Amino acid sequence: MQIHSPIPELRQALMKRGRVVFVPTMGNLHAGHIALMTAARAHGDTVVASIFVNRLQFGPSDDFDLYPRTLKEDCEKLAAAGVDVLFAPTEGDLYPEPQQYHVEPPAIQNQLDGEFRPGHFRGVATVVLKLFNIVQPQAALFGKKDYQQLMVLRNMTRQLALPIEIIGGETVRAADGLALSSRNGYLSAAERAEAPRLQRLLQQVSAAIRAGETDFARLERETAGELDRHGWKTDYVAVRRQADLQLPDTGGKQALVVLAASRLGPARLIDNLEIDAPGGR
Amino acid sequence: MQIHSPIPELRQALMKRGRVVFVPTMGNLHAGHIALMTAARAHGDTVVASIFVNRLQFGPSDDFDLYPRTLKEDCEKLAAAGVDVLFAPTEGDLYPEPQQYHVEPPAIQNQLDGEFRPGHFRGVATVVLKLFNIVQPQAALFGKKDYQQLMVLRNMTRQLALPIEIIGGETVRAADGLALSSRNGYLSAAERAEAPRLQRLLQQVSAAIRAGETDFARLERETAGELDRHGWKTDYVAVRRQADLQLPDTGGKQALVVLAASRLGPARLIDNLEIDAPGGR
Repeated sequence: MQIHSPIPELRQALMKRGRVVFVPTMGNLHAGHIALMTAARAHGDTVVASIFVNRLQFGPSDDFDLYPRTLKEDCEKLAAAGVDVLFAPTEGDLYPEPQQYHVEPPAIQNQLDGEFRPGHFRGVATVVLKLFNIVQPQAALFGKKDYQQLMVLRNMTRQLALPIEIIGGETVRAADGLALSSRNGYLSAAERAEAPRLQRLLQQVSAAIRAGETDFARLERETAGELDRHGWKTDYVAVRRQADLQLPDTGGKQALVVLAASRLGPARLIDNLEIDAPGGR
Repeated sequence: MQIHSPIPELRQALMKRGRVVFVPTMGNLHAGHIALMTAARAHGDTVVASIFVNRLQFGPSDDFDLYPRTLKEDCEKLAAAGVDVLFAPTEGDLYPEPQQYHVEPPAIQNQLDGEFRPGHFRGVATVVLKLFNIVQPQAALFGKKDYQQLMVLRNMTRQLALPIEIIGGETVRAADGLALSSRNGYLSAAERAEAPRLQRLLQQVSAAIRAGETDFARLERETAGELDRHGWKTDYVAVRRQADLQLPDTGGKQALVVLAASRLGPARLIDNLEIDAPGGR
């Protein structure tokens, strides 16, 4: 009889499979998703994508019914991107009965985006765990545009001992800097022209911090004010630690990220920018 | 590119492994555990056992520190029972950092045993999910003695789409009917002689229901009173549906179980009895 104590050793003893890389999506695919599919190829032998609009992560006032479903076009894009397997479950496949068991993330689930979307990250964590259990990949990719989601899923995966490497994919942007998003399709032409301001202001915040600014609360307040003066309704602008999105330590040298969510016309847009080398910190 | 919608079909497409059967324990093994190991052999090629006293499922007033640790004797028993692999993690292996992500079971986690052990089933569900993620078995066995635990884990496994068959093992009893339990070791000789009353009374409840009794509340009250007259302090006696431990439907024909927990001296003993063919129902 073998006896193992460290988890990696036990895993090694039981392992028999090749390497599957997984990219979960809600469909309505754009170049940002396709960049994830292409990146996935470098991380394994078999690339699996999924398309599922997950009711569990939408609040009652969210856009679940409105959310665009474009399966036929999505399939063509995935095939062209060299994806090997698509998992496209129905609601009955994934939720054959009301979901009663959930993954409960810690308090960060109710902060930043979670403050404005109660239950959202619980719904994301629960459906991604189910998808992981079904696909059983060795690696999974999520875009950095949904930065808080990436952080929650990375920490969930580590804390629940899932044998899955979580990889963040860089945000893909239009030429004017707007982060690609399914929700950009809700914007009028005038709103679309205004939308790049969000990323421009985050770059200003980043530049200020790299130049030595340490009054993050003032930067956050001024950025939100600037957006709102141009017709936005800002939910938050926040400078946080990358690893767990907690408030930065005073005088610490930790890697930072500035995150924002703001509503422009019918669309709620989110964006962020990593600040890897804050000056004077 | 393949496209799959039903989960079983997707799983088939991705499956490459043999069959591992897993029996998680907290150690201090008795004949009840060994019966699970022997039964496991019939369900797969490789039998994996684990021993881990899980702090997360003990309340502040529970017996975590007192809980018996007997790893050397346990290893000998497992080897003799033909177990192939033992996973015996340290606390640092399984909880290298404070656990922040939990499996949250539904309301039943705060009823029956859960009413007297706040957080217990959340702790059980979370550690078993982690063990499942580490061992990645095709089947897992749990004793029916911890009936509510078996029900929570079976429903968690189904609801989180884990590709694991959950198998309940029959309770092993001493000649006088007492269910084997690590906690029986806390009993004095006099208490040990009194202890079989719990199972005897559950058999009387079962006989009454099979004979047509439908006033479950009266049976529960009388059984608890009978125990307490003999020096027990009863937490609950409850007649419930087997599938989800909810209150039985009036006039329904569902399979029932009677469960009880009662404190005798220093030990909190639990037991139950399935009632598969209630008369007149």
